[in-house]
Amino acid sequence: MREVAIIGIGINKWGELWEKSLRDIFVEAALKAMDDCKVSKIDGMYIGCMSCGIFTGQEHLASLLPEYLGLGGVPTTRVESACASGGLAFKAGYLDVASGYSDIVLVGGVEKMTDVSGDEATYALSTAADQEWESYNGITFPALYALMARSYMQKYNVSRRQLSLVAVKNHENGSKNPNAQYPFKITAEEVETSVMVADPLRVYDCSPITDGAAALILCPYDMAKKLTDRPIVKIKGVGHATDTVALHSRQDLTTLKATTLAAQRAYKMAGIGPSDIDFAEVHDCFTIAELVVLESLGFFENGHAGMATEAGHTRIEGKLPVNPSGGLKAKGHPVGATGIAQMVEAAEQLRQSAGGRQVKKARRGLTQNMGGTGGSTIVTILEAE
Amino acid sequence: MREVAIIGIGINKWGELWEKSLRDIFVEAALKAMDDCKVSKIDGMYIGCMSCGIFTGQEHLASLLPEYLGLGGVPTTRVESACASGGLAFKAGYLDVASGYSDIVLVGGVEKMTDVSGDEATYALSTAADQEWESYNGITFPALYALMARSYMQKYNVSRRQLSLVAVKNHENGSKNPNAQYPFKITAEEVETSVMVADPLRVYDCSPITDGAAALILCPYDMAKKLTDRPIVKIKGVGHATDTVALHSRQDLTTLKATTLAAQRAYKMAGIGPSDIDFAEVHDCFTIAELVVLESLGFFENGHAGMATEAGHTRIEGKLPVNPSGGLKAKGHPVGATGIAQMVEAAEQLRQSAGGRQVKKARRGLTQNMGGTGGSTIVTILEAE
Repeated sequence: MREVAIIGIGINKWGELWEKSLRDIFVEAALKAMDDCKVSKIDGMYIGCMSCGIFTGQEHLASLLPEYLGLGGVPTTRVESACASGGLAFKAGYLDVASGYSDIVLVGGVEKMTDVSGDEATYALSTAADQEWESYNGITFPALYALMARSYMQKYNVSRRQLSLVAVKNHENGSKNPNAQYPFKITAEEVETSVMVADPLRVYDCSPITDGAAALILCPYDMAKKLTDRPIVKIKGVGHATDTVALHSRQDLTTLKATTLAAQRAYKMAGIGPSDIDFAEVHDCFTIAELVVLESLGFFENGHAGMATEAGHTRIEGKLPVNPSGGLKAKGHPVGATGIAQMVEAAEQLRQSAGGRQVKKARRGLTQNMGGTGGSTIVTILEAE
Repeated sequence: MREVAIIGIGINKWGELWEKSLRDIFVEAALKAMDDCKVSKIDGMYIGCMSCGIFTGQEHLASLLPEYLGLGGVPTTRVESACASGGLAFKAGYLDVASGYSDIVLVGGVEKMTDVSGDEATYALSTAADQEWESYNGITFPALYALMARSYMQKYNVSRRQLSLVAVKNHENGSKNPNAQYPFKITAEEVETSVMVADPLRVYDCSPITDGAAALILCPYDMAKKLTDRPIVKIKGVGHATDTVALHSRQDLTTLKATTLAAQRAYKMAGIGPSDIDFAEVHDCFTIAELVVLESLGFFENGHAGMATEAGHTRIEGKLPVNPSGGLKAKGHPVGATGIAQMVEAAEQLRQSAGGRQVKKARRGLTQNMGGTGGSTIVTILEAE
């Protein structure tokens, strides 16, 4: 396998972008990534998008988006794996370069979620659950994660306050991210008095509905220096795994098996372990998710991530900064774009260009992106050159 | 890049499978492919599916299908590129093996199209066109291909009879395929008196709505003999390209640029040209498509494929047998499965196990699978060992 590097990154301001269409949003982020590294010749493209068919009536982004980007003819593939669509698009693009089939590959993610009503968006997102056994019977994602939260809080005697502090920390980070959908701070009291969605999860425990896109330019590591003078980020580990799509089929609701399996492969490939990671961008679609994910990645013992959060260990100045970007909670969660955006943030950190949210000594970062209730997960390990 | 081989193939009986769900249909074909080569350990899976979200309310097949196949945990990716979803899933799986990241990869395609009404299916398929400029204004795929047909017939003085003979030939082949949805012969007169859909295309010019799946097992060529005693099929060329999603943006409606670009790459990779191909499986979603595709692949001069069809050159016993399987027309067109099914047929032919529809001296075959009106296309070249 050829070694692969990230040489360009692009992201736009996320939010409810009613004046822009899916194609506008994607092109904006993709052009930023191309401008970033001054590369104009692209050999292949991979696009992560969860449910453009339901959200916008448009499948076949693989034909639409290269055309609108001015790259008509370029071989392009859309990848879907619910909220891990972006991460999986990255993996497919990574393998394309690693194999030697293509040299310069653009991987992007996009989702346009606000052109439909809230009910319709909830329906679209429910297609990530088991249609026959879960969504058909009316369960939604806040409810599924609420079941995980109840199970976790009871098993490990975790307080409501520890959940709240995940949201507080991520909004504090997000307040320093100009591209975040909600760049403001919140307090634990605000989380705990916000509208109840699915007990114990309140609206400030949940990531929002977002329009947005993000993009990366990949190339073989040994070509990177010839192509650009931007700082180069090396891809050291890529792991991917799946788990049952339905929550009720799992033996344990308080760990995420696919996250653990994916991390094991990524660590092995990189030849390192969790203690070698300087910061992480993880899939905090709900506050409970960040805690369970951090434990499944091996950063904390089971049941300990809440205490670590309370002690400040996951803050930007802590021992293991988590979600310096603001996470899905504050930055927003355009589902197909999230996995790519995590890698954009990791690259910013490794380039030491993350401004007010810069993690000190950021030499090696991990990203974790998952679909559904963790039925699919991808973990990457990135390193500054 | 590692050389890659096909060692297992699986397909089920296609049709209106009302008693089976998407997961049942996929598992059936995937298990057949695994049984075929007696491989039970799978390192990765890629699934082509166009619009499971709209057709069945189920995205996230990447989590669902490995679980139902008894392969929980296996890294799995869903790929979508409209009716080229299957072919593009193959490409992603091919690159996974070629890169050295995975050894044994299952690539499959599936679509469950008959659980919705005809109107709903027409809507779902229209998402492969340009939502803002084509489908929003009410145009459907028969109408788009009718525009191509009119343009082509006028430019090259092609007769209605030549279109009909594509359908007649493909139904004759399909009558020998036990897995075909419509395994019966038709006459040119029957085509020409069938219900008008979009002038000049009648119902027998159109491929049907189908439930079905197909699967392949890939591995590195140098491992193939150790893994199975089945005949081995080598992958010699893989080309992929895109074109404008909207038909009105093309300079010429009578050729398919993405097909030509994809074929050029595949021929170059295989080190051969069109005259070295013994048979082809091509994307005859409408009769006109087969003619235009054959010319865009370089098999015939522009405007000559109709005459070649009339002369019998594309029949199983002709100079260049085309769609020995019965094509999309007679075999059926479960959109996400079609690209994989073409490769299953090509492998059957190269194994000399295609029964009554066996092409003589089938040593090298080409498959061509496209999305929309040709906005995305993949071409593969396969060779008997």
